[in-house]
Formats: sequence, C-alpha cells, structure tokens
Amino acid sequence: MPGSVQRYRLDISYDGTDFSGWAPQPSRRTVHGEISGALQRLLRAPVALTVAGRTDAGVHASGQVAHVDLALDVEPDRLVRRLARLLPPDVRVREVTVVPPEFDARFSALRRHYVYRVTTSPWGADPLRARDTLAWPHPIDLDAVVRASAGLLGEHDFAAFCRRREGATTIRELLRFEWSVDADGVFRAALSADAFCHSMVRSLVGAMLDVGRGRRSPDWPAGLLDRTERVSDVAVAPAHGLTLVRVDYPADDELAARAAVTRNVRTR
Amino acid sequence: MPGSVQRYRLDISYDGTDFSGWAPQPSRRTVHGEISGALQRLLRAPVALTVAGRTDAGVHASGQVAHVDLALDVEPDRLVRRLARLLPPDVRVREVTVVPPEFDARFSALRRHYVYRVTTSPWGADPLRARDTLAWPHPIDLDAVVRASAGLLGEHDFAAFCRRREGATTIRELLRFEWSVDADGVFRAALSADAFCHSMVRSLVGAMLDVGRGRRSPDWPAGLLDRTERVSDVAVAPAHGLTLVRVDYPADDELAARAAVTRNVRTR
Repeated sequence: MPGSVQRYRLDISYDGTDFSGWAPQPSRRTVHGEISGALQRLLRAPVALTVAGRTDAGVHASGQVAHVDLALDVEPDRLVRRLARLLPPDVRVREVTVVPPEFDARFSALRRHYVYRVTTSPWGADPLRARDTLAWPHPIDLDAVVRASAGLLGEHDFAAFCRRREGATTIRELLRFEWSVDADGVFRAALSADAFCHSMVRSLVGAMLDVGRGRRSPDWPAGLLDRTERVSDVAVAPAHGLTLVRVDYPADDELAARAAVTRNVRTR
Repeated sequence: MPGSVQRYRLDISYDGTDFSGWAPQPSRRTVHGEISGALQRLLRAPVALTVAGRTDAGVHASGQVAHVDLALDVEPDRLVRRLARLLPPDVRVREVTVVPPEFDARFSALRRHYVYRVTTSPWGADPLRARDTLAWPHPIDLDAVVRASAGLLGEHDFAAFCRRREGATTIRELLRFEWSVDADGVFRAALSADAFCHSMVRSLVGAMLDVGRGRRSPDWPAGLLDRTERVSDVAVAPAHGLTLVRVDYPADDELAARAAVTRNVRTR
C-alpha cells in the first residue's frame, strides 16, 4: 500500500461531549489525537493533520474539514471504511477526497458556518438532543436578538468578543447571524464568517442570550465593536450548544491562485 | 400542597441508553424508578405509575405517556418545572395534564407509534445521532422492504414476531409500517398498531433488515403470520434504533364509554 505522497481532504463529524476539543494536548482525549492515531495505525508512520477550525472542548462538528499528506495508494472509499472500524463511535470520517497540493484545510477556507441550539422550554432539553442543545432557564425575545444580531454583520474588529490568541487578528467579517425557532420550540442561531477568533461564536451567542432575556438592550452588542480588548461583561455561552456545520472552499482550479495570495498576506 | 386525589397524565421523553428499560427492576436504573422516585420526593409518599408502553432496555421515547393519582394541589406547569429540577437530563416530563379518572395510560390507549432509525452509510452513524440510529453494515433494498412491510398490515396473529408474555394476546392490528430515507441517507421505519406484543417492533424491523439485504424474499415475513409461536429465524433488531414517538387516546368525553368496554373485554 505505500505509494507517492498525495493530499487527502477528510470530512469529519464528532460529538464533542467527551473530547477536550480538537487541538492535541498531552494526556487528553482530543479529536486530533483520535484521527491521527487511527491514521498512524493504518500507515505505521507519523502523520500531520491540519484542520479548518480548532473547536474547543465540548463543541461538536457535523462538517469539520482537515487535510493530511499520505504516502498511501488507497482508494478514498476504502479509507473511509477502514477508518470507520478504527475510530470510536463519537468521531466519524464521513468522506475522503484526493485534493490538489494547494488545498489547505485551514488557509484555503473561505467561510466557516456554525449553528447554536438553545431551548427555553420549562422542562429542559429533549434527552436525545441534550448533548447539542443548551437548556436555558430564561425567555428569549426573538425580535430583540434578531435586531441585535443584524447589527453585528460586516467587517469589524471583534476584539470585545475574542479570547486573545498569540498573533491572531480579531478583525473578521461576520456574514450571517440569523435566528429561527423550530417546531419543537428550539432556537437555532446560524453564524457564518470568513473565520472566527477564539471563543467568538460562543461570545456572540452569550451576548444575545443577555439581550434576549432583557438584561441588555439590542444596541449593546454592536456598541462593543469599537473596543480593542475582550469585554468581560460578554458571557461565553456553554460549549455543548455549538456545532461547526460547514466550511466553504474555492473550486480546485482557484486554489493555486488563492494559495499565492494567502502566502503574500501572511508574509507582509 | 396536600389536596384531593386527582389523576395526572405525564408526557415523557427519554434517552434509553443508560436505562434498563421502563419497568421497575430491583437494583437496576429504570425510567419508572427515576420518575416515581422524583414524585415520591415531592410528595413524601409512595406513588403508583401506569405507562402506555413498557419499553425495553435501550429503547427511547419522545412521546411516552403515563398516569398517576396524586393527592396534590399543584398547578401542572409548576409540577413540570419541579420535576425538571429533580430528574436527571436523560428523562424529561414534558407536560403534565389533569385528566378524568377514566383515563388510563395503558388501557385507554388507541394506538402506539414507533420509529426505527438505521443508516447503511459506510462511515457509520452521525455521532450526534448514534444513540438512536443503528449503523447497519449491509445494503437495504428500499423497494423490497416497502413491499414486505405492506404485506403485514392488518389484524393478524403476530406470534412469530413476539416474545411470549404470560397471558398477553399476540393478535394485533398493524396500522402502518412505512419506510422513508431522509436527506442524510438515514432509513426511517414508522410503525403504528393498536398495541405491540413484546419485542414485536424490533422483530418486524429485524425481519425487514434480512429482506433488505436479500437474505429473505419480500414474501417471507407475511408467510410467518400463520405461526402460533415465535420463529427463531426472525432476528430482533438492536434496541437503540427504536423510539416510541406517540400514543393516541380518545377525547375525554369518550373515555368513560371506552373504559366500560375495556372492563367487559378483560373480564370475559
């Protein structure tokens, strides 16, 4: 099965409940650790895995994307089946695709899409969805959160909503922040951006929960956009309501051009 | 809070994964045990709980129904909130309703509705739905299972598909046995009957899984309807794919008449 090195894209889903997030950490169970461990057992060699979004402990994914270079002559579909047997049930590699060498799961990504689920029902969360739904014991004024969320759209410095990470910019373009209520009364917030800084999705949702229960005005979150540091008044919503649902990439033939631009930006 | 005795209907959801089913068993964690325990802590007195469907270990419910007589002068909505605090997250009492004394969760029930979820995807089940979805490593021929399922509709002796329980009839009316495939490729079987005998839903689904992979002909399940004893060739599908989704009852003003009929039938 050894062959020339090829780049593979992995489409990944996980239940984040029992993981200390994506990123590798010594003696912690991480999604990165499970997947790279399974690949290493297949290959009997170390592998380097790059991911679109390093989700925090407890955050789920139905559309996470990673890439890995493997000296492996194996059909993608066969790799999916072999990984299904090697991985635990709470992480699944749903699809494997051969991609051009310019594809980078992190730096080629155009947009990340997240969903946050929260219920205000007096009896709590549906037991079969309790792992990915926050049971929130306060009302949510839908009109207020819809208005407040719309006020954050566009390119801004989201520093007020970010936990600092070394060297990471907090200027992001928020493309979508929409709320809906499903037939079972579960609120669903859909957020999309070019990228999110650390804790940004959960801080945006946390701010809206305070708006929704009337503790803050709908104008308050947008008023924080001129800050240059994290604002401690902004609550970080619990991790388990959050799921990374999709990552968008350019078509294969646009990847090379985009990779060159990204390199220029990063070395400026 | 003591008052005159009233009958309460409880609408219940649970994740069956960590329960040894509904029915009380010494030193086992059961749904009955959790709910009656919570009610007893509220009332400081024993309670007798009657349920529509005594689900097996591992089977879930989104629409289970029970009744209980309580000498309790408490608003139903307040009882829902108090039970939400006393119960563990894997069982929820979604609604409490005062019902006429003729309402009996078990004997007034007209129809029980179940759903079985199974995926044939090569990567297994969505991690966030793995608790209520069977990952089945064989194909399912949808046309064959649809045809075979339709052949079982109507009133029959389902003894071939039942585990014997003392004194229980195996003559049942199967009202619905339909299959669909959702956008994620998950097969969903919907089954309704006046009542199901022990293991009947899982045996019907187990028979269809053998039809779907081509090990049995679509005529085989209906051919078993003349048997008077359980047929060991019929596999019992795993519990965790099954959810009790709804129980139908007559309107309140029809309950008294129906209760009289049921008493006559049972004493014949």
